[in-house]
Amino acid sequence: MKRPSKFATTPEPPYYAVIFTSLRTDADDGYARVAERMVELATGQPGFLGVESVRDAEGFGITVSYWSSTGAIAHWKAHAEHVAAQEMGMRTWYAHYELRVARVERAYAR
Amino acid sequence: MKRPSKFATTPEPPYYAVIFTSLRTDADDGYARVAERMVELATGQPGFLGVESVRDAEGFGITVSYWSSTGAIAHWKAHAEHVAAQEMGMRTWYAHYELRVARVERAYAR
Repeated sequence: MKRPSKFATTPEPPYYAVIFTSLRTDADDGYARVAERMVELATGQPGFLGVESVRDAEGFGITVSYWSSTGAIAHWKAHAEHVAAQEMGMRTWYAHYELRVARVERAYAR
Repeated sequence: MKRPSKFATTPEPPYYAVIFTSLRTDADDGYARVAERMVELATGQPGFLGVESVRDAEGFGITVSYWSSTGAIAHWKAHAEHVAAQEMGMRTWYAHYELRVARVERAYAR
């Protein structure tokens, strides 16, 4: 079966996951454009393995990005354009969010 | 600020996350009822910490459940009613899924 494209293709564990759970505000202010740009930018970062993302009609979303190491995550977190986006996120786009960094130990697919 | 209820309230790390990414088929066959029952059942399991779940209009979804230990995850995986639901999931409800077990090492909220 062809793998649907919303799934990330990740290597054998171990690797890392950043689980970002968020509730959007009603404020737009360029959100969609920046969100798209962040995915494009992340994809080019060292150690980026993939991303899976979904948001429902009420604005609640989960984005999981996968990385080869905690160093790769720290590098991406500190990227200047990403820092600016994080600040807009905190100030304007998200009513609440949770961010968790986790080490993937086992993985299955079907 | 009142925490929106779709977010899980988890303790300080470390704890475990089960990241379940899935694409639904068009088959219904009791899916919504069983999905709701599984959340209800999981909530009562030893070591259950919380769950966050979202599915978009195209049937792509991410559910992250949080657990105190890998033993708690194994215990839930082997629960008879859950095993039956897993089999229906593989056979009927999911066109594709990915399941990852990860150890949460750091967490932030805002």
